[in-house]
Order: sequence, then C-alpha cells, then structure tokens
Amino acid sequence: MNHEFVVPGFLANGIHCGIKENGYKDLGMIFSIQPASAAGVFTKNAFKAAPVLLDMERIQRGEGQAVIANSGVANAATGIEGLQDAREMSLMASRQLGIRDELVYVASTGVIGYRVPISKIRKGMPRLVTGLKEDGFSQAEEAIMTTDKMPKMSLAKGVIDGREITVCGLAKGAGMIEPHMATMLAFIMTDANIESGTLDKLFRSSVDRSFNAITVDGCMSTNDTALILANGQSGLKPLNGSRNIQIFKTMLDDVLSQLSFSMVQDGEGATKVIELRVEEAKSRMDARRIAYAVANSNLVKTAFYGGDPNWGRIIGAIGAVKETIPVNAVRVTLNHVVIFADGRGIDGHESELKEIMALPHIRVLIQMGMGKAHFQLLASDLTHEYVTINAHYHT
Amino acid sequence: MNHEFVVPGFLANGIHCGIKENGYKDLGMIFSIQPASAAGVFTKNAFKAAPVLLDMERIQRGEGQAVIANSGVANAATGIEGLQDAREMSLMASRQLGIRDELVYVASTGVIGYRVPISKIRKGMPRLVTGLKEDGFSQAEEAIMTTDKMPKMSLAKGVIDGREITVCGLAKGAGMIEPHMATMLAFIMTDANIESGTLDKLFRSSVDRSFNAITVDGCMSTNDTALILANGQSGLKPLNGSRNIQIFKTMLDDVLSQLSFSMVQDGEGATKVIELRVEEAKSRMDARRIAYAVANSNLVKTAFYGGDPNWGRIIGAIGAVKETIPVNAVRVTLNHVVIFADGRGIDGHESELKEIMALPHIRVLIQMGMGKAHFQLLASDLTHEYVTINAHYHT
Repeated sequence: MNHEFVVPGFLANGIHCGIKENGYKDLGMIFSIQPASAAGVFTKNAFKAAPVLLDMERIQRGEGQAVIANSGVANAATGIEGLQDAREMSLMASRQLGIRDELVYVASTGVIGYRVPISKIRKGMPRLVTGLKEDGFSQAEEAIMTTDKMPKMSLAKGVIDGREITVCGLAKGAGMIEPHMATMLAFIMTDANIESGTLDKLFRSSVDRSFNAITVDGCMSTNDTALILANGQSGLKPLNGSRNIQIFKTMLDDVLSQLSFSMVQDGEGATKVIELRVEEAKSRMDARRIAYAVANSNLVKTAFYGGDPNWGRIIGAIGAVKETIPVNAVRVTLNHVVIFADGRGIDGHESELKEIMALPHIRVLIQMGMGKAHFQLLASDLTHEYVTINAHYHT
Repeated sequence: MNHEFVVPGFLANGIHCGIKENGYKDLGMIFSIQPASAAGVFTKNAFKAAPVLLDMERIQRGEGQAVIANSGVANAATGIEGLQDAREMSLMASRQLGIRDELVYVASTGVIGYRVPISKIRKGMPRLVTGLKEDGFSQAEEAIMTTDKMPKMSLAKGVIDGREITVCGLAKGAGMIEPHMATMLAFIMTDANIESGTLDKLFRSSVDRSFNAITVDGCMSTNDTALILANGQSGLKPLNGSRNIQIFKTMLDDVLSQLSFSMVQDGEGATKVIELRVEEAKSRMDARRIAYAVANSNLVKTAFYGGDPNWGRIIGAIGAVKETIPVNAVRVTLNHVVIFADGRGIDGHESELKEIMALPHIRVLIQMGMGKAHFQLLASDLTHEYVTINAHYHT
C-alpha cells in the first residue's frame, strides 16, 4: 500500500463552513475532472435520509462527477424540506463546478432530524471549490468525520496492460448494514476505465464482503452510502478480460477490506477487532445469520472486552439461531486453540487462551458440521466507553 | 396481591449444599403432597442443558410432583455425563421423597460447561427434604438465584365456585426468549384442579405474553425453564366453563406479568424498565419483530440509560426491520408525548420529555399505520453496570 493519496484526474477538499460548533471541518467535496462511471450501495433502512433518496435516483444512470458531503447533521427524517435541501446542495455544487447537476452526489452524516443549514453551505461553497486539489483527500476525509477517532483512508496500486491503476477510498463510521453511528460513508475513486454495469457488479460483490460484513452494535443507519467513481484517467480502454478484471477486483477488495478493518477498529469504544468466520454451514445465509448472531451478542461482546474465552456464550448465541443445530458436530476455535467440540468445552489451554484474549485482533472460527457454506465478518467488543459515548451523544 | 407465599398442598425448601463458594443457598426443592397436573415451556436453544432435555421428555405425560433445582453450575454442554447427572439428581430426590421418579423435574442455573457436584447434592438431599415446609418458597427462591439482586416471587388469589384458589410463582433471571444470564427459571404452583391439556394451553398463552415478551440483552439461554404444577388441593372439581377458566387465566397472567416485570427491573445493570408497545402492524409477527428490533438496539438502550428521548434511534431501529415501511404513517409516543409523526420529529416538548426520561418506568408506543396487529414487551436499558457484570462474570 502506498500512502500518497492521489488518484489521476481527481481533486478534493474539505473546509469548516460552520455546521459543527467545534470549528472542525464539516463540508467536503470530491471532484473528477471528467464525468466518471459510478456505482453505489445504500442503506436498506426504511427511513432513508434525503441525500440517500436523491443519490439512489441518480445512480440509475451509472454516471457521476462530484460528491458533496457534510457532517454535523444527517438530513434524515426531515420530510420534503430535507429533500429540497439535498437538491439545493447539489445545485450549488454543480453551478460552482460548472457541471451538469445530475452528476453530483450528496451525502450527510450527523444528528438525525435536523435540516442542513443551507445558507452556511452556500457561503462556504466558493471556498470549497476554489480549494480543490490533487492531494485534498485527507481534508475531504476530515470533513466527513463525526465521532471517528482516526481518519480512514486506503489506497491500492496495480498494473493493467502495462499502465498503473490507482484505487483510493475514504470512509467514516463503523458499518454498512450494521453501523454504529448515524452513518457510514465511503467514497472510492479510481482512474480505471470501467463501464458502469461492470463497475456496479464488481462494487456490490466487494461491498458484500467488506462493508456488509462488519458490525459494531448491530444497528442500521438511515444514511449509509458507499459510492465509487471510475474516471478512466489511466488512459486505458474499458476494462475487459477476466485477468484484468481480477487485478482490479483484487485492488478494490484490498481498499474496501482495509477501510472495513479501520471502521471496526475505530468502532465506538472498541478495544478489540474480532475476525469471526463460520464454516461448514448449510447455506451462506445460514452462515451469515450465525456469524451475526454471535458477533452481535452483548454477552459475547462483553466477554471479549473482559478477556474471557467464554465458549458458553458463543455456543449460546449459535444455538439461539436454530433449534435443529447438531450440537455435537459444532467446533469453536480461538486463533489456533479448539475451545469447544463434541458437545463440550475443551480444557487445558487456560494460559494460552488468556494470552490470545489479550490480543487486539482475535480470530474465532466456528465450524458447524452441516455443509460447505461460509461467511466471515469483523466485529468489535462492547465496552464501558461504548455506553458512555452513546448514553450522552445525541445522534 | 397477598404476600403470604403459601399454596395449599405445596411444600418447599432451599439450602446451601456446597456448590456456591460464597455460602449462599444453592439447592432448592418444591414438592406437592400429591401428584399434580404439569405443563412446561423450555428454551428453544439448540444447546439445551441436560436438565432441560430430561424435563422435556417428562413433561409429555402432563404430570409432576416435585422440582429439584440447583444454582452455581448450569449442567449445560456437559455431554452424556451431564444427562446422567440430571437423572441422578432426580433419582436421589424421588427416593428421598418416596415418589415415582418420573414425577420429578430438574433445573440448573449457573456457569455453562460445568457438571453438577453430585456428591454434594447427595449429602444435602436428606436435609433439603426434611426441611420442606409450607412457607418454604422464599428459601427455594434464594436457592435458585445467581446474579439476581432481589428475589422474584408473586402471588394471586381468586375465588372459583365459592372456593379460594391460589397461584404462586418463583423466578430467577431476566428473560425467557431473551434472558440475560445463563438462565431464567420460573416455577408456578397452584391448588387449582386443572386437566393437563388445559393447563398446558393456558400456561403457554400466559408465558407468551409475559416471559416471552421481555428482553434484557437479546441473548437466549441454554437452560430456560418455566414449569407449572396444579395439585387440585383446593378441592374443586376440574376447572371448567369459560368464566372459571377466565378467572384462573387472569390470576395466572397477573403472577407471570409480575415476575416478568421483576426480572426486567432486576436485569443486569438495569436502571429503567421500558414498556414498549407496537400497534397497527400488519401481523403479530411483524409487531413482534419491530418491538424486539427497537428493544434490543444498543443505541436505543443506551439512549434510555442516558435519559435522551432519541426518536432518531427508535425510527432507525424500526426502519432496519423492513425497507417497505410507510415512513410517513409511523407515530412514536413517549408516555403521553408524540415525538415522531408525518416523517419527522415533533419539537416543543423538551422539558416534559426530560422528566419522562428520568422515570424508572417509561412507556413507548409505536404505531405503524400498516394494520391492526400489536405486540407488547418489557425491556431494560444498557448501562455501564451491564458491561461491568458481563465483562467479568464467567457464565
């Protein structure tokens, strides 16, 4: 991974326009110097925020050139006025940039139920656009952060047909299907040349194994948005051929996995990242259900926080999914140590387990003995700090 | 409610036999002087504890005369030896009591993965049985408590055909479908005369609206057991006629509701009981899913802990259940104050809401505008204390 966050043909910026009271950056923009292929994945929450509704309509065309994003307020549950505000944000951006309005995507993150302060955004817009620059991604990243403790950026480079290709991603929050705060946002930029149908397919598949396979607290946001723009500035002809597609897909997977890991690691109050893999399930859906049941169990999450290798809580969570699980076939392994098999706990590894449970990154393998399907996710632990943050932060 | 916990024809006792290291009571017994009609509801967890498997087999006959219960170890995930231990506990009890072995039910609660210390139970059995007495329920209750901070007992009296009928219940833990610890146990005793088929029907219906409608942390135990014994000592002929059945049903509902409330109130770390009702849902199953989604959302639970009337988190949890919810038809009310309607939050009640959120018992009404079904449950909040207890207690 290279940490010069520059992608040919993309500019970015982030400023403080006055939404956040603490003076931190709150308005960000990403701009491609030419229209790009675009694909997006959005929250499945029924209460979709206004910008999500707008983006879902626009992504149908498979095209995009700019993203305008604010933090501080979510513009969710704001009725028809909220939708007008999102359209107004887009209009201001497209006019300032001199591009077609339908090529602009809007994203908001912050407190639900509050409208975006349009006049502040209008006032900040010229400064935001004038300041667009090649190495502006970190400023854009800052502008979308809320309770994030660290920026989340990732970059991959590869070579296709002799030319260097870059994939770069920015993200905030800690989840997609299961985000911790008002929102997860992720914007991915690449100079690859990809037809929008192919981009959509590749992006969805990659999101499914990354952003859709993490959990902090099992709560789904109203604003989750993951967008990718591919502007073709690498000068290559449209991506084609299974080998080239595979190279690009691997880069995309790398960037999204890295961002996912960062989000879980920075999950509210998290002290540990738990990599949980379910194998030998009857179907992928079963494997997924079991993985989430364990990862979202507060008893399991607090056990990891407390450093307790508690297989009783893990099997309790597995068993709650389906009454028909063949309990004697289930095996549970922590890193390299089998802790449950043949219907009972395996003793004699106490000191080893104590060391494993103290690590910041722990692997849990659950083998169901029912079939061949598998699913893997990343989860955080449940801590005092999580309760402190969420008992007092008004999302 | 009368607080003399005595039911004609029932005796009980509880002793310390040496399972718990702190010297607290850990072995309890309930005994009916004659065989009683019996019904039971058990955990749906695939990893059922040994005593649950034994009881599920015995309850088929609809008969029972004694319950032997221990706390300290759960006898769950203990393989074939665990099942032998449960049978041995039953055998020791039936011999000491001089009754048929298949009339004995066994229950265990405590740490998963540990076998019951049969020799300690054998040694304590004569003392346990000799000490059986009419007013021994509170001792039996003490003997099944684990992290419970208060005993959970409830009693109702009613008159059927001119004779007084008593229903008395003991419980430990904080949930049935969603218990917080290794277990919820509940034992209900009545002197009503009820044929076992009717008893089973009435008990299941009552459990469905009480023990199956509470949640502390959404985790399902391996040991949950709710048993009812009806010994007919009231001298009445078998319960018959819709009016008499209704009188008994109301008493049973009262006792189970009271125990359910106590379990949530005493939920690990709980500072508040949230009574959450979903109305106008398409089906009862939908209403139930929505109610549990909101009640088990860690963001909602921490908001209640923090005293924050956060409708954004409530609608976020509702919206995560189904993408097709008509968001503008949903109304959310806290006690008597509407906080969300027509797709947005309702302002102007801040001081009233602050007062409501400080109460120990808060009502949340969610009207979906989709149909006529409803579901109601009791939930606790998520607190620092919950994390403290579960990060360090080995269940």
